[in-house]
Amino acid sequence: MDRNCQNNNKIGGSFVINQLVNKIKKLNAPVVVGLDPMLSYVPEHIVKKSLSEYGETLEGAADAIWQFNKQIIDKTWDLIPAVKPQIAMYEQFGIPGMIAYKKTVDYCKSKGLVVIGDVKRGDIGSTSAAYAVGHLGKVQVGSKTFAGFDEDFATVNPYLGSDGIEPFIKVCKEENKGIFVLVKTSNPSSGEFQDQLVNGKPLYELVGEKVAQWGAEHMGESYSYVGCVVGATYPEMGKVLRKVMPKTYILVPGYGAQGGTADSLRPYFNEDGLGAIVNSSRGIIAAYKQEKYAKFGSENFADASRAAVIDMIEDIRSIF
Amino acid sequence: MDRNCQNNNKIGGSFVINQLVNKIKKLNAPVVVGLDPMLSYVPEHIVKKSLSEYGETLEGAADAIWQFNKQIIDKTWDLIPAVKPQIAMYEQFGIPGMIAYKKTVDYCKSKGLVVIGDVKRGDIGSTSAAYAVGHLGKVQVGSKTFAGFDEDFATVNPYLGSDGIEPFIKVCKEENKGIFVLVKTSNPSSGEFQDQLVNGKPLYELVGEKVAQWGAEHMGESYSYVGCVVGATYPEMGKVLRKVMPKTYILVPGYGAQGGTADSLRPYFNEDGLGAIVNSSRGIIAAYKQEKYAKFGSENFADASRAAVIDMIEDIRSIF
Repeated sequence: MDRNCQNNNKIGGSFVINQLVNKIKKLNAPVVVGLDPMLSYVPEHIVKKSLSEYGETLEGAADAIWQFNKQIIDKTWDLIPAVKPQIAMYEQFGIPGMIAYKKTVDYCKSKGLVVIGDVKRGDIGSTSAAYAVGHLGKVQVGSKTFAGFDEDFATVNPYLGSDGIEPFIKVCKEENKGIFVLVKTSNPSSGEFQDQLVNGKPLYELVGEKVAQWGAEHMGESYSYVGCVVGATYPEMGKVLRKVMPKTYILVPGYGAQGGTADSLRPYFNEDGLGAIVNSSRGIIAAYKQEKYAKFGSENFADASRAAVIDMIEDIRSIF
Repeated sequence: MDRNCQNNNKIGGSFVINQLVNKIKKLNAPVVVGLDPMLSYVPEHIVKKSLSEYGETLEGAADAIWQFNKQIIDKTWDLIPAVKPQIAMYEQFGIPGMIAYKKTVDYCKSKGLVVIGDVKRGDIGSTSAAYAVGHLGKVQVGSKTFAGFDEDFATVNPYLGSDGIEPFIKVCKEENKGIFVLVKTSNPSSGEFQDQLVNGKPLYELVGEKVAQWGAEHMGESYSYVGCVVGATYPEMGKVLRKVMPKTYILVPGYGAQGGTADSLRPYFNEDGLGAIVNSSRGIIAAYKQEKYAKFGSENFADASRAAVIDMIEDIRSIF
C-alpha cells in the first residue's frame, strides 16, 4: 500500500473549500450524497454475491457495502459536487469496514468528488491533532509522510472547546483542507444541551459565534474552510445561524428521510445562493426502496439513486 | 479472521462495571494505563526493527506501536485493572493503525484487562447505534454475528443529547458493557462551552445530572455501567460532580503529564474509596524518558513503565 501521496488539494494554491464552491456553482447543485450504507439497504443480489465470495464474515459485509457504494457513485458522480461517507456505518464492520471506508474515499476522489468524512471526531489538543493528521493530513514515518484516510473535509465535535478544534484548523491550513463543526444537529434531542440558554442566548449560537471567529481567520476565496453543521430540521435556528456565520459554509443534514423539506432550506443559503450544502443519505442510496422509485427494481438500485439525485437537485433549485 | 465471538462479559451474568470494580478492589489500584502511543514515544530500537521489516510505511509505524504496547502490557498487566487505548493515536496511521488498535484491544483482553476504548464517538441515533455495535456490540452478517472492535467500555460525547447516547446504553445492556460520557474534560479550553452557565448552573453539571439519570436505570452491583469523564485538572468541579452522580464511575484523565496531582484526586472518590479510576498515559508509557526513570534506559522502557505504574498506585493510595 503506497499512500505516500501528493497533495492534490494544493493545485492552483486553492483551498478545497473553493473547489467545493466552484463545483456547486458549475453543477448548480448544492447537494451532497451521504454514503451511509446499512447492510439492510444493500440489494439482496449484491449481498448474496459478496457473502458467497467471502462467506458470512465482516469481509463479506464490507465487500457488499463497497460494491453498493461503487455502483451508486458510478451513477451519480457527474451530477454532484460532493459525497459524505458516514464512518460509523463502516466502523460497525470493524477493520474490514474501515477498509471499505478508505476504498470509498479513494474511489470518490478518483472521480473528482469532494469527500466530506462524517467522522465527528474531537478531543483534547494532542489527540485532536492525531485525528486531524489521520483524516486530513499526513503522518511522519521515518523520512516519509503518509495520508491515513485522506478525506477533503471532516466533521468535528466542539464540546471540548477551541483547543480541540485548533489542531484540525492547523492541518487544514497546511493541507488546504476543511472542517465542518457541529453547531446544531438534526436529531430530535439535539436541543437537550445545544438549545440551553447562556445569558439569554442558546448554546448553539455561542458555538456558531466561535465558528465564525475561527473561520474569519481561515478564509478561502469567498467562504471559510471552517464550516459548520446545522440540521435541516431546525429552519428557524438555521435562519439565525446564517446571520451569525455569514462566511461559513453550512452542511445541512436532515433533508428527506429525517423530515427536512426544500421550503425549510432557504434560510440556510446566503443571497448569493451559496453558503449551504444539503445532504441526503437514505433518500438517495436506498431510493429503490421508496414507492416513487420502485419501478427501477432492486437490480437497478443505482439508477434509482440517480433519479433521486436529479429530483433532489430540482427540489432544491426550486427554492431560489 | 474469525470474530464470531462469545460474549465473555456475560460470565456470571456480571456487568463489566462489576468486574472493573472488583479488579480495582482486589488490586487496590484505581488506575488505568492510557495506551496512547505516539511514534516519538517508541524507543529507537523498536522503530528501527519495525521499519526494517516493513519499510518506512504505515504498516511499519503500526508494527512499532504494537510492539511497544505489547511490551508495556506484558510488564504491567498484573498490577492494573484496566487500560485505555486512545484510538486517535492509531487512527492517525490509517488502516494499519486501526489493525494495531484492534490487536492491542484483543491482547489486553487476553490478559484479563478491562479495555476502555477512548473513542469519544457520538452522533444522531441511527449513527450512534452503528458506533455502539462496532465498538461494544455485534453486527449481524447473514446468519452470524461479529464484534468489530469489542472493547469493554467506550467513551462517548454528549453534545447531541439523549438520542445520541441511548443506542450505546441499549448495546451495553444487551452485551453487559459500559460507557463513560464526557462531562468535564481535562483540557485547558474545556470551559469554553462546558462551563457556560445555564440557569445559574454550568453546562457540565447539567450533563452530569443527565448521566446520573441515565445511570440510575442501568446499574451494576453498586455502580452504574453509564460512567462519566471528569478531568483531574478541575478538582473543584470534580467535588460537585461526585455529589451530582453518586453511583457513577468517574474516569479521570489529566493526572501526571497534564498537571493533575494525587492531592487533587480525593474529591473524585466516594467514601467507600471507590467511584473513580485515574488514567495516566504519557506518564506511564513514556516513563523511560523522564529523569526519574532514566536509569532503566530505552532498552528497558517497559520496566520503566512498570516502575511508574507502581509509583502511581502508591501515590494514589496515599490520598486515602
